Amino acid sequence: MSEQEQLRSIRERIDAIDRELMRLISERASCAQTVAQVKRAAGSGDDYYRPEREAQVLRQVKEANPGPLEGETLARLFREIMSACLALEAPLRVAFLGPEGTYTHAAVLKHFGQDVRLAPMASLGEVFREVEAGGCSYGVVPIENSTEGVVNHTLDLFVQSPLFVCGEVLLRIHHHLLSSGPDVAHVQRVYAHQQALAQCRRWLDANLPHADRISLSSNAEAAQRASQETGSAAIAGDTAEALYGLRAVKRNIEDHPDNTTRFLVIGRQATIPPSGVDKTSVLVSTSNRPGALHRLLTPLAHNGVSMSRIESRPSRCVNWEYVYFLDIEGHSEDPDVRQALAGLRQEAQLFRILGAYPRAVL
Amino acid sequence: MSEQEQLRSIRERIDAIDRELMRLISERASCAQTVAQVKRAAGSGDDYYRPEREAQVLRQVKEANPGPLEGETLARLFREIMSACLALEAPLRVAFLGPEGTYTHAAVLKHFGQDVRLAPMASLGEVFREVEAGGCSYGVVPIENSTEGVVNHTLDLFVQSPLFVCGEVLLRIHHHLLSSGPDVAHVQRVYAHQQALAQCRRWLDANLPHADRISLSSNAEAAQRASQETGSAAIAGDTAEALYGLRAVKRNIEDHPDNTTRFLVIGRQATIPPSGVDKTSVLVSTSNRPGALHRLLTPLAHNGVSMSRIESRPSRCVNWEYVYFLDIEGHSEDPDVRQALAGLRQEAQLFRILGAYPRAVL
Repeated sequence: MSEQEQLRSIRERIDAIDRELMRLISERASCAQTVAQVKRAAGSGDDYYRPEREAQVLRQVKEANPGPLEGETLARLFREIMSACLALEAPLRVAFLGPEGTYTHAAVLKHFGQDVRLAPMASLGEVFREVEAGGCSYGVVPIENSTEGVVNHTLDLFVQSPLFVCGEVLLRIHHHLLSSGPDVAHVQRVYAHQQALAQCRRWLDANLPHADRISLSSNAEAAQRASQETGSAAIAGDTAEALYGLRAVKRNIEDHPDNTTRFLVIGRQATIPPSGVDKTSVLVSTSNRPGALHRLLTPLAHNGVSMSRIESRPSRCVNWEYVYFLDIEGHSEDPDVRQALAGLRQEAQLFRILGAYPRAVL
Repeated sequence: MSEQEQLRSIRERIDAIDRELMRLISERASCAQTVAQVKRAAGSGDDYYRPEREAQVLRQVKEANPGPLEGETLARLFREIMSACLALEAPLRVAFLGPEGTYTHAAVLKHFGQDVRLAPMASLGEVFREVEAGGCSYGVVPIENSTEGVVNHTLDLFVQSPLFVCGEVLLRIHHHLLSSGPDVAHVQRVYAHQQALAQCRRWLDANLPHADRISLSSNAEAAQRASQETGSAAIAGDTAEALYGLRAVKRNIEDHPDNTTRFLVIGRQATIPPSGVDKTSVLVSTSNRPGALHRLLTPLAHNGVSMSRIESRPSRCVNWEYVYFLDIEGHSEDPDVRQALAGLRQEAQLFRILGAYPRAVL
């Protein structure tokens, strides 16, 4: 067969695949409509978004992926298909710390897909209030984002809020070496937030061992300084690159290629059924007596439950000194987790399950 | 059947659909790989992006869409599937006027899908240079965007550049009434760029007939002013809403709900085969003698070719007074368009076909 004949034959096959894809995606959307009709007929609410079911579908796609697409790419396509089907019945409105174009905006799209209605807010407090007031079904807030320093604020807001954690989103963050000069060799000075400098230390040691490293209050400020000085560079992301007219003389210089920021999805939904691979977030406090924290955590160890994270925040309440945010592997309805939580509840002064939700798939 | 049984049966069908979708999308990706192999084996270049073919697929999807999804939603899902398949072989790098989060960024994603590599630039000139130098395969530049006032600059850049137009993107733009006050009734003063005021005039006449309308240099400045004064509001988009801590007291107040901004895709590819529904952009100039423009356009009328747009720019060259940018319906290879262009070429002093490309589908 000639090249043209071969190409024609493949393209005919692609056309046939596309017709079949269109038929199936449309049938899937019809199924979603039928689910909504059945639920309405039975009077069982109009909450059509089921995080645990979405997590199961996405995990299944990644596990059964026959290639050649990456599992993550395939899962992202399914995320969009589910997002479009859901929007047909009940478009979700999601609050986040704006403006558009931020990492949190990217996290919203990653978790909910393109068919979500965006509600950018001016502060984290407003994100919580908007969801509490019912103006939005969900909110997305950063929880582990060392460079932007907003984690603590998010934790503090949880203490006051009646909202629950309904999901988590992981976002990979890349750092670039930005400069107005032509290449790495010209760089004598590197500006960045100290966290970014730390996250790129090995790369800097290997490639710019003699350059001064100067820490500033933000990567944006670093980019601004670098844009005004010759022989200087900044570590920052894509946005700063364009904003300050700099060039990435080297991209993705972070030492850990899985440099991720974690976000939580907040909502009014107290319980999400287990998806099979879940996490439970708990807010607890204890007195400041010696050994109190150790005692608090004993029930977890006794029940073989692992804790993936613990954060402490000074309490604003007289009754206890610190509040702790625990992330536990497993769902609060799993027998071992339930027993561990019962023990924890007995030891703690304040005890609140913030939520049990599917672990991030994408 | 009980509600639970009904739901279980629908969900089983959805699971079966998802398995089939996964199989088909993966096979489509394999086909794309085979196309690349065949082309490489035949030594026929590594340019796998074919705008005319993508446009055909998307149009076909919209036309044959059986519902219940909107044709545009379904086409967007196909855009993402094609984007993922293409990225497997040759990920596209696309330059645009940054930072991320701008309308142009949205236009890039709308046209190329999520699997594109973003290259935000600090100026329109850099977008052109980056594509000319081969650092990016394509660039996306605004061409009809009255509120941001960059159209003329784009046109001027075309005069100097060897690049071609490879596509167009249409983006719907919404205006909101933003205020720090609680509702429309409190607004005594409305700030905005004069174009935005003009685009919302009917709404303002009907809803705020007694409010002062004050035009500023940009909607962003308007939002900033409104955020500092009680009783004031600004007309601006989503981004300003979050950036200046304002609330949209009324959304989508533009008089024409299809208030769109048009972008051009620029590249080094001189000819794109006809997709069936195409446009041709031409750059021409003529002397300033009376009737010259009329004579220039006569060949179009004689051949029954419609012109969808004409823009003039003062020339920076002594040989002619003005250059004109014409958008013509049809492809430069269509017989009637070809004849019309031949006539145009004879009348014009400067004549360059900027490109023939598929009309925007989405």
